[in-house]
Amino acid sequence: MLVSRILRLSRHRRSVSGCRWFLPQCHRHDHFFILPSSSGDSALKVFGCREAYTWSLPTLYAPRRNIHHQGSSMVEDDQLDPFSLVADELSRIATRLRAMVVAEVPKLTSAAEYFFKTGAEGKRFRPAVLLLMATALNVRIPQPTSVSIGDRSAAEAELRFRQQRLAEITEMIHVASLLHDDVLDDADTRRGIGSVNFVMGNKVAVLAGDFLISRACVALAALNNWEVLTLMSAVAKDLITGETMQMTSTADQHYSMDYYMQKTYYKTASLLSHGCKSIAILADHTAEVALLAFEYGRNLGLAFQLIDDVLDFTGTSTSLGKGSLSDIRHGIITAPILYAMEEFPQLRAVLDQGLDKPENIEVALEYLGKSNGIQRARELAAKHAYLAVSAINSLPETEDEEVRKSRRALVDLTQIVLTRNK
Amino acid sequence: MLVSRILRLSRHRRSVSGCRWFLPQCHRHDHFFILPSSSGDSALKVFGCREAYTWSLPTLYAPRRNIHHQGSSMVEDDQLDPFSLVADELSRIATRLRAMVVAEVPKLTSAAEYFFKTGAEGKRFRPAVLLLMATALNVRIPQPTSVSIGDRSAAEAELRFRQQRLAEITEMIHVASLLHDDVLDDADTRRGIGSVNFVMGNKVAVLAGDFLISRACVALAALNNWEVLTLMSAVAKDLITGETMQMTSTADQHYSMDYYMQKTYYKTASLLSHGCKSIAILADHTAEVALLAFEYGRNLGLAFQLIDDVLDFTGTSTSLGKGSLSDIRHGIITAPILYAMEEFPQLRAVLDQGLDKPENIEVALEYLGKSNGIQRARELAAKHAYLAVSAINSLPETEDEEVRKSRRALVDLTQIVLTRNK
Repeated sequence: MLVSRILRLSRHRRSVSGCRWFLPQCHRHDHFFILPSSSGDSALKVFGCREAYTWSLPTLYAPRRNIHHQGSSMVEDDQLDPFSLVADELSRIATRLRAMVVAEVPKLTSAAEYFFKTGAEGKRFRPAVLLLMATALNVRIPQPTSVSIGDRSAAEAELRFRQQRLAEITEMIHVASLLHDDVLDDADTRRGIGSVNFVMGNKVAVLAGDFLISRACVALAALNNWEVLTLMSAVAKDLITGETMQMTSTADQHYSMDYYMQKTYYKTASLLSHGCKSIAILADHTAEVALLAFEYGRNLGLAFQLIDDVLDFTGTSTSLGKGSLSDIRHGIITAPILYAMEEFPQLRAVLDQGLDKPENIEVALEYLGKSNGIQRARELAAKHAYLAVSAINSLPETEDEEVRKSRRALVDLTQIVLTRNK
Repeated sequence: MLVSRILRLSRHRRSVSGCRWFLPQCHRHDHFFILPSSSGDSALKVFGCREAYTWSLPTLYAPRRNIHHQGSSMVEDDQLDPFSLVADELSRIATRLRAMVVAEVPKLTSAAEYFFKTGAEGKRFRPAVLLLMATALNVRIPQPTSVSIGDRSAAEAELRFRQQRLAEITEMIHVASLLHDDVLDDADTRRGIGSVNFVMGNKVAVLAGDFLISRACVALAALNNWEVLTLMSAVAKDLITGETMQMTSTADQHYSMDYYMQKTYYKTASLLSHGCKSIAILADHTAEVALLAFEYGRNLGLAFQLIDDVLDFTGTSTSLGKGSLSDIRHGIITAPILYAMEEFPQLRAVLDQGLDKPENIEVALEYLGKSNGIQRARELAAKHAYLAVSAINSLPETEDEEVRKSRRALVDLTQIVLTRNK
């Protein structure tokens, strides 16, 4: 099994230089301890998450590591902002995407401005992960000032260019799915800003999404790599499958943690996992390295979504009811509630009565508050963050400082994902 | 200029054997006469259609040619049903498309059933045109019973297979655009059947459309022909551009015949024209032949849409107000009204007051009834049908009976498009 394989690998490799947390073995520290479940590998099964995890929360909540937000990136006092390593490339990608929309369908300019110019936070998370992964797998960013452009550096520049296109493609797919999700859910707002369909109408949202999908497909075809095309087209199917799973489910599926995790993989983690794997494939890495890249993306994506689900209840604070409660109000049951149901089976009867009634939401929140639902959801996120870090630690060793820096950035990203508060 | 070139070519070629109308030279017949405008080539300018066309309506309205509908195809008493030539392939395409959706996203089965199984009329028009074009350009349908499968027939079979995939792709793109149009327009019905978004919700419509777009892109990439990929991706852009043109226009654009024709090209004719051209390119035809294929598709598409716009006013009868009046009720101004405005400039003031008021629609219909708007829109459609036939007549001569039969079918299709009543 893949996860256990990663763990076995990680136990025999030293951790990335500069990685200050999540060493692969059990250890304890004032601000940081991870205790793998006594049930061993089985506790790491990604789609079978009913086990009582015994992971405690790592350094993330330690007071000395004060994390704050700065512009579109998140910075920790004593560490390099992971986004800064690829900031120039991210900026160029956003500019290219905007220019493409404006040039090809001028009437969608407003939508392009909205998504690629206003710099709403988190919009470039996926390309950042892919570009960091590209460097983490030994591929250097070409130096424009380099004086000796031999065959090798030309090939490296060409590869980096292709990987940048892939990063761009993931952003296009992501933004298209946001646009269409907004239409689907009739969402009035996204992250506090009026959603594009609310501001500009459903028409613009559907058309802009369609445009991005079709351009992403053409860009993928231009990469001329059948394996990458197949992987990334699987993402499109997964996004759609995840949405249909959310849309139509039996009562048992609705309350199933397995079903929830599978849906979460399809909706959030598939793009990151297939994107990271594709980065490795473009660079002709071994199947083992490609799998590690995939596992990093998958686990980071799952952690990201689990925290998203927690924040829907807690918002910026740790107390309940401070979030937007958007999921539960739309009848979407996520990990915290599913865990609460395990502790208080009577919660199901409340949920069965329908979440369109505010009083039922109140009761459900009461049960959630009495339970360990929020904490267990955070722990599950931390477990996936740990698995993501393990994948990075399992990569072939390197002395290249740039590569090590990018690997550390990927590790730091898992922490940022866990500690973000919006 | 392309059109004049086609005409020059067509004047020097004999007409397709069996083509019983639209000979390229001027002529007159009891039931059939075409008089090119005295302004010559300029009258044939596709996007500059303000000229007073002097084309009369050809044989289409002659009583002896009784056209009726039979199942999903339209048959004329004394001619072969054009669809019958490719019926088996069309049926296989529908089955493949349905199976693909059902296998990959089972929850979209209902949408797949709706579009690929219920056989609502007109659903396979585009693949039929492409497959007929494939044969018309000398590519034979491989005979499964053939005993001598040499290199040549294997290559032919492979080519036909690729052309079938392209026909499938056009249907996917078309259905996806229907699905998303329904969401955009909030249309309750499409062709009298409850639209998929009305029956199954916006979610299914958007997702099913997204699925088809992404699969169409992958299928296109699999054809591994960069020129075809570029052409077909232009279609996606055109569909979106056409929709945005309809969505946002200045007052002058709103009442401009040029703008209307350009939008019509993007929304309807682009898919057929690029599809037909791609069929030629897959078969390695000359640029001249590819251009003729393109012109056939473009003019057929324009004729198709012009008649669609007429039918919105007349429905199955020739009298006004028998159609669904869906366009005008949505504030969409089409050719009949634009022509009526040329005769009665005071109509513009009525339109300016807004078509959300039923009394304004009544007044607009009165003006339309007094004008030659309907007739002139039909004449414009007939002109484009003529240009489509001219393109077929300009193809390199052939003695191959199968090829000639397909060319005749394409010619007959133009007539069917003009005389359809739904």
